[in-house]
Amino acid sequence: MRAQSTTTVRVRYAETDQMGVAWHGEYFAWFEVGRTDLLRERGVTYRDMEKKGLRLPVIETHARFLRPAFYDDVLEIRTRVTSLTGVRVGFTYEVHRAGGDALLATGTTAHASVDAHGRPRRLPEELRRLLA
Amino acid sequence: MRAQSTTTVRVRYAETDQMGVAWHGEYFAWFEVGRTDLLRERGVTYRDMEKKGLRLPVIETHARFLRPAFYDDVLEIRTRVTSLTGVRVGFTYEVHRAGGDALLATGTTAHASVDAHGRPRRLPEELRRLLA
Amino acid sequence: MRAQSTTTVRVRYAETDQMGVAWHGEYFAWFEVGRTDLLRERGVTYRDMEKKGLRLPVIETHARFLRPAFYDDVLEIRTRVTSLTGVRVGFTYEVHRAGGDALLATGTTAHASVDAHGRPRRLPEELRRLLA
Amino acid sequence: MRAQSTTTVRVRYAETDQMGVAWHGEYFAWFEVGRTDLLRERGVTYRDMEKKGLRLPVIETHARFLRPAFYDDVLEIRTRVTSLTGVRVGFTYEVHRAGGDALLATGTTAHASVDAHGRPRRLPEELRRLLA
Repeated sequence: MRAQSTTTVRVRYAETDQMGVAWHGEYFAWFEVGRTDLLRERGVTYRDMEKKGLRLPVIETHARFLRPAFYDDVLEIRTRVTSLTGVRVGFTYEVHRAGGDALLATGTTAHASVDAHGRPRRLPEELRRLLA
Repeated sequence: MRAQSTTTVRVRYAETDQMGVAWHGEYFAWFEVGRTDLLRERGVTYRDMEKKGLRLPVIETHARFLRPAFYDDVLEIRTRVTSLTGVRVGFTYEVHRAGGDALLATGTTAHASVDAHGRPRRLPEELRRLLA
Repeated sequence: MRAQSTTTVRVRYAETDQMGVAWHGEYFAWFEVGRTDLLRERGVTYRDMEKKGLRLPVIETHARFLRPAFYDDVLEIRTRVTSLTGVRVGFTYEVHRAGGDALLATGTTAHASVDAHGRPRRLPEELRRLLA
Repeated sequence: MRAQSTTTVRVRYAETDQMGVAWHGEYFAWFEVGRTDLLRERGVTYRDMEKKGLRLPVIETHARFLRPAFYDDVLEIRTRVTSLTGVRVGFTYEVHRAGGDALLATGTTAHASVDAHGRPRRLPEELRRLLA
């Protein structure tokens, strides 16, 4: 069973659009919050990883939007590691309204492991152990 | 041959992140600019469509990020209609650096056709003709 | 002594720019989070106020940026009501790094009280009491 | 007479909020576009300046919002250099709806001149001449 975590965000006014819902592009910022928190819970921070020269840029992403999220809603972002190789890591996300069962959105991101110059770099063994 | 158009955006400083590249979530705003411009070139505006009670929320999206875009780069967003049914429309996007051949990113969006209350509504015949 | 509250936000990766700090425009979203939370703590929500036809658009804002905020920093947004008339309300903000004394930024926003059509509307007496 | 320029932006759907207007924080991104274009018209680019180690972070900003901007509006951002010392530069902005006289918003930004480590650095003489 791979690493997973749940984090919450509250929809900001700035994140809404004139359709009266959270703009779909904001979910990618929330997914990022989910990844950041999952790593922190495992004992590493993406901030420190970057300082040590490791970066995990998004190379592919996918999302489905099933139900809208509204201003001031508290959302649960459930993040899981779903794939892990020497130079790649993949995450899956589920967005629920807190306290409710309804699934609002799902998503995936795939990341390359690169150094500060954008060159491929193997994921450190310790990080792989933490995420596995 | 379905409707298509090319629009350009220049990467804003606000759109960069500390990796020194355009943040991946910004591409979804650029895709939106591409759709808006494609419709305008076909003689309709999404603004007017909304005023008449038609909305096309994104229900699914996918993107691949092949090469980074940098601050102040001029990007070409090439947008095409790739599917069209009575209640759905799909677009495909290619992002190139202007004046270059290199493909930076590709993406797709799928949209439901709904009324102002979010209920399914058939795409108006005139709009379907323009996009076909 | 007017209404005040403290809320926290964690700087998101999406909020950084290529200078390696939180982009200055993001502070206005955080100020908004501060206002939303101050109202909630006083027993009203801006969401409900809007549903009842009251809006408080920003008509003026000012901010000073003294020290940068970094990705993953936890920030305290200290929000206070600093002026209140029949048709205007003003807020002041201080942004501190959590657990530290250093002041990162200060700001103010002034808001008009308008109805759903943008016409001036007196602030409800109950709301004025809660904010006073 | 100091350097000035006019640039245009079209309001994006992503920039609207549920009040049905452009979110006030977006203006700071547009001001940035105005600065970027003013510099380019004077023969320098902020991108190149950064590469040479000069940065101009915003240390203070102010804006007044007089009339709303709407999705798909074309806006003119009129940018002027209004102050210039050895280590500071200030800009003023006016936002008009293109083809109209109405002033939608005004703003100012003040910038410190710093090196890549955030330490004060005198504005290069050539840049001062271009902006004066």
